[in-house]
Amino acid sequence: MDPVMMAIGFGLVAVLYGVLTSRQVLAASPGNARMQEIAKAIQEGAGAYLGKQYAAIGFVGVIMAVLVFVLLGPVEAGAFVLGAVLSGVTGFIGMNISVRANVRTAEAARLSLQAGLTMAFRSGAVTGMLVAGLALLAIAGYFYALVASGLAPTSRAVVNALVALSFGASLISIFARLGGGIFTKAADVGADMVGKNELGFDEDDDRNPGVIADNVGDNVGDCAGMAADLFETYVVTIGATMVLVALLVGGADAARLMTLPLLACGVCIVTSIIGTFFVRLGGGSIMGALYKGLLVTGVLSVPALWFATAMIFPDMNAVIGTAERSFTGRSLFYCMMVGLGVTALIVWITEYYTGTGYRPVQSIAKASDSGHGTNVIQGLAVSMESTAMPTLVIVVGIIATHQLAGLIGIAFAATAMLALAGMIVALDAYGPVTDNAGGIAEMAGLEAEVRERTDALDAVGNTTKAVTKGYAIGSAGLAALVLFATYTEDLAQFFADVPVDFSLSNPYVVVGLLLGALLPYLFGGMAMTAVGRTAQAVAQDIRAQFRENPGIATREVRPDYARTVGLVTAGAIREMIVPSLLPVLAPVVVYFAITAVAGQGNGFAALGALLMGVIVSGLFVAISMTSGGGAWDNAKKVIEQGAYGGKGSPAHQAAVTGDTVGDPYKDTAGPAVNPMIKITNIVALLLLAILAG
Amino acid sequence: MDPVMMAIGFGLVAVLYGVLTSRQVLAASPGNARMQEIAKAIQEGAGAYLGKQYAAIGFVGVIMAVLVFVLLGPVEAGAFVLGAVLSGVTGFIGMNISVRANVRTAEAARLSLQAGLTMAFRSGAVTGMLVAGLALLAIAGYFYALVASGLAPTSRAVVNALVALSFGASLISIFARLGGGIFTKAADVGADMVGKNELGFDEDDDRNPGVIADNVGDNVGDCAGMAADLFETYVVTIGATMVLVALLVGGADAARLMTLPLLACGVCIVTSIIGTFFVRLGGGSIMGALYKGLLVTGVLSVPALWFATAMIFPDMNAVIGTAERSFTGRSLFYCMMVGLGVTALIVWITEYYTGTGYRPVQSIAKASDSGHGTNVIQGLAVSMESTAMPTLVIVVGIIATHQLAGLIGIAFAATAMLALAGMIVALDAYGPVTDNAGGIAEMAGLEAEVRERTDALDAVGNTTKAVTKGYAIGSAGLAALVLFATYTEDLAQFFADVPVDFSLSNPYVVVGLLLGALLPYLFGGMAMTAVGRTAQAVAQDIRAQFRENPGIATREVRPDYARTVGLVTAGAIREMIVPSLLPVLAPVVVYFAITAVAGQGNGFAALGALLMGVIVSGLFVAISMTSGGGAWDNAKKVIEQGAYGGKGSPAHQAAVTGDTVGDPYKDTAGPAVNPMIKITNIVALLLLAILAG
Repeated sequence: MDPVMMAIGFGLVAVLYGVLTSRQVLAASPGNARMQEIAKAIQEGAGAYLGKQYAAIGFVGVIMAVLVFVLLGPVEAGAFVLGAVLSGVTGFIGMNISVRANVRTAEAARLSLQAGLTMAFRSGAVTGMLVAGLALLAIAGYFYALVASGLAPTSRAVVNALVALSFGASLISIFARLGGGIFTKAADVGADMVGKNELGFDEDDDRNPGVIADNVGDNVGDCAGMAADLFETYVVTIGATMVLVALLVGGADAARLMTLPLLACGVCIVTSIIGTFFVRLGGGSIMGALYKGLLVTGVLSVPALWFATAMIFPDMNAVIGTAERSFTGRSLFYCMMVGLGVTALIVWITEYYTGTGYRPVQSIAKASDSGHGTNVIQGLAVSMESTAMPTLVIVVGIIATHQLAGLIGIAFAATAMLALAGMIVALDAYGPVTDNAGGIAEMAGLEAEVRERTDALDAVGNTTKAVTKGYAIGSAGLAALVLFATYTEDLAQFFADVPVDFSLSNPYVVVGLLLGALLPYLFGGMAMTAVGRTAQAVAQDIRAQFRENPGIATREVRPDYARTVGLVTAGAIREMIVPSLLPVLAPVVVYFAITAVAGQGNGFAALGALLMGVIVSGLFVAISMTSGGGAWDNAKKVIEQGAYGGKGSPAHQAAVTGDTVGDPYKDTAGPAVNPMIKITNIVALLLLAILAG
Repeated sequence: MDPVMMAIGFGLVAVLYGVLTSRQVLAASPGNARMQEIAKAIQEGAGAYLGKQYAAIGFVGVIMAVLVFVLLGPVEAGAFVLGAVLSGVTGFIGMNISVRANVRTAEAARLSLQAGLTMAFRSGAVTGMLVAGLALLAIAGYFYALVASGLAPTSRAVVNALVALSFGASLISIFARLGGGIFTKAADVGADMVGKNELGFDEDDDRNPGVIADNVGDNVGDCAGMAADLFETYVVTIGATMVLVALLVGGADAARLMTLPLLACGVCIVTSIIGTFFVRLGGGSIMGALYKGLLVTGVLSVPALWFATAMIFPDMNAVIGTAERSFTGRSLFYCMMVGLGVTALIVWITEYYTGTGYRPVQSIAKASDSGHGTNVIQGLAVSMESTAMPTLVIVVGIIATHQLAGLIGIAFAATAMLALAGMIVALDAYGPVTDNAGGIAEMAGLEAEVRERTDALDAVGNTTKAVTKGYAIGSAGLAALVLFATYTEDLAQFFADVPVDFSLSNPYVVVGLLLGALLPYLFGGMAMTAVGRTAQAVAQDIRAQFRENPGIATREVRPDYARTVGLVTAGAIREMIVPSLLPVLAPVVVYFAITAVAGQGNGFAALGALLMGVIVSGLFVAISMTSGGGAWDNAKKVIEQGAYGGKGSPAHQAAVTGDTVGDPYKDTAGPAVNPMIKITNIVALLLLAILAG
């Protein structure tokens, strides 16, 4: 059977799973009238924000689509639109199921911890399988259609279409990640600043006008933004692997080998679905239940990937040669095993750096006991240190796969990492649902044990969120190498007559490295400023509401939740535009500026080095922010569980400060670095195609 | 006249200036008995720490000297010892003048602001001229002696000796910067944590057992550590320029051209000395007075550098060709002008990011009004953003000088930057003296206006300190390129038969870049942890002293200052060892590990990429930390001057938190990245020489 058709079939299975599971979720009881009222407010806020966000992105997207159409052609423009629309749809559906599962999780948690876990995880699994399924359908479907229309799989039109598809996904994803990230953290920080610090309210007190905005943020940032991000990571990684195969491997071998990434991802959708059924407490911890599902998926993926490889390589030891290095089906299978190993190690390392039971989080909790300053110092120290082990893992992964099968080997390791995306996203998307469920339980005045159960589920969500980010950025480390290799191959094919010196001894390479390394810093600085500025606006609005209506404090008057939501919406959309355009424009500006000064060869060299610089620097910025932020958050949880004086103690106040700092680190700036790296690379590839055309 | 002899002469002038000026300083009144008593405690503490620190460093140094002797030879070992000893001497003398000038500045400030400024700046100028003078004497003197002994200037023995001299200076400097940095910030943070936050004391309250340790820290960290750092930067930059000339330019041209860096630095010592006489208030601001001196030095350096170049190039338009690019005396002069321009721009940019009058510091002050968390978020945002403009300046500098004269041009731009070191260090070293003077005024109960005057002087010191660090790391950006070029040239000469692929498309280059980029993060994380841990020990000791002797609070009993000093001393020395050895060992480990896996060619490629990775990442880590830390500190000062409620307000407490976080950023981890980058590069050069030998 045709492997591409099989991949499409697996993609449809994922969508079917999503549809059936979301029906299960929706069939559950949405709780009492008060709960439904609160959930409705969150739904409306999230819907309104996402509508406005997509309108703003759509405006940029249409301009880009026209540019792609004019500069490249209709096939590429179609691919761009497909990638962009499906990325948006993924986020939209994920958000919609999440805002319905939250109240049902609260209701289920009244029954038992297991029931709450099941409901929240099912909702996460819907998002996870839709991310993997739609992404696979987009890329396999468009590839199938193009080949069926008579184009050779390795033809330039197909290659360009794959790149344009990735561009569409990435462009939406950076806006969604950043806009959602600014929304969620501005609302969270702003609501806490006034509600907790000035008025002494608990989290999710329904007198706080920012409380609905905070809950909306969980859905539009941690759910919709995250889904768009992982959709992008999936499409770009698989697409880049296929493109690299097309460029490096010649002829019929290439056409066959290009289908392996699709099939590999397809079979792992099945293992991911099987894994979801193993997420059960069974006496152990919540984290244990989630890891059980991941472990089952990982273990089953070994034979599944062997099966996929064997289908493409009837003789697993037949040698395929490239100009760079020859490899076999067997060596590619080993590379995919390395990819699974890298995933496992990154999960484990992130768990170590953000879990409540280990040295890093404990050290931050301890430092909180001496004050705000030492909490932040230790948090920053942990965030910097947390980059070391993932880097070593990635380095070993690069060396091992390159020894096994050259650049193609690195690409297949990255593909295998992403093949598990359905399961990983499920673990992540469950988090905001439980967070919201806790908020609804609090606001609706449900029994205290409901809140305790959702809190327990939420604490684990902090770690799984960090895990997903570490995984995404780790895979980006490998994917960026693949994209860079694609860039140099493209260059060799398009501009064989322009000598390009990519050596580190070329000063324009150094210039490119420095400028590339700057991008994550500038981007991160802008994102942090955006959160700070919007949070201050939120705080002012909340203070104003209390001033205008003193009755809010005594519950005589309902706060105007929608006003705060509207304010955060406007702020997030305004603030997301400039930083998101930075990685789109930087490659173009650098190429033309250096070409003007030092000739086209150096322009290409500087642009290539920019791509490498952005990953070399971005990897560290992203890991330090996401792990550090997770560690701060859980250090607070350690204290809230009673350490160093518990809730209300000076140590707790210091830990709240650390958590506030960690918020934009881990949920705004850090995760957005991942699509930023990819988009820089993809714009460079498109630029080459345009310059050549 | 022989340019080297002239350079030696200028070096002696600097030392003579230092001797005469320190006599002037010592001749001034050291104040009343109480002041002298306090000053003596600081002197003893600083002396004791520096003695122990040098003993510890000496232990490592002797091992290294033996290694250099065995692996390279006596000439190199001699150079290593010379560099190490003079680096140590510079720090030692600087510290000794600083601990005597502090009390005299306090006494002088009773008279007038001008008198205080003169006294503090004179002390700074002594350190500055000693740094420049001794560094120039070391390098010019050893070079002269080797050439006089019959070695060709471009011979391998001379080249290796210059590298070994740099190694000696760098090794001391990283220990001194880091050890001193841990000392000063652990004492500062620890004393503030208990004194200010728990007991409500003012800064420098003499009942605080940590107050002497805090004042000692200013001298051993901000003065001795800084002096060793700039000594290293000077020696490495000049040495690397000479080595690059020896390797790239052939024959008699090279011998002549190697003397230009020495002469250029020599004439700028004279312009720096002249500049010191222009540091006078004259109705303007304190910052204006300091900048007047710097401006005079900068302007006079233009003709001075023209004179130096013309002496070496009787025909300024005569072309010297290298394999890479040809250049003229005139083009080298222009490159040095670019170096002066880069210095001016970095000073201006740092002033913008850390000065109290501009947007960045104001934005942090404003964010403090909403709490601890938003202060830290905005501070981190500013710290990340502050890397952008310096990076662009460095990039433009690289492009301009490379267009003018190739790699040699970049080297001479870096040399011209360092030629102003005497003046820049003077501006910096004046800061800790005024800081101490304020402390002594407080503890000795001097008139309130004395403290006001020293506070005004100290606030400016915050910005000049940040300026020096930006300048050092900016020059490191250029110097690292020179060192990398030296590495590749060395490799071509030593291992012509080993093909090395430095292209970005070689995965081992990527591996090297990633590992290199990791070093500043790991190092920074370790340094921050060290400060946090030692500060907690200090805080515990202070609490214990109050518990053991309740009479301290009522001034019936004097606190045991020496006990706290001893504790910080032990902590700083223990904590400095491992991080300092990281950059020494990393190049060796990476080379041998990659060679074992993928052959010597890839080992060399990975090692070279490691050098580039450490600068590409280190530049951003260092600038963000030093500028961000300075901005936090001055945001606190803005509030203390009355904004957002002034001293004691919630905004002030938030600003104190930010300042505490900024402390290890700007005074421990950030500045130590500069010698770390250099030492990584130098170890790699030595490794090549050893492998070849």
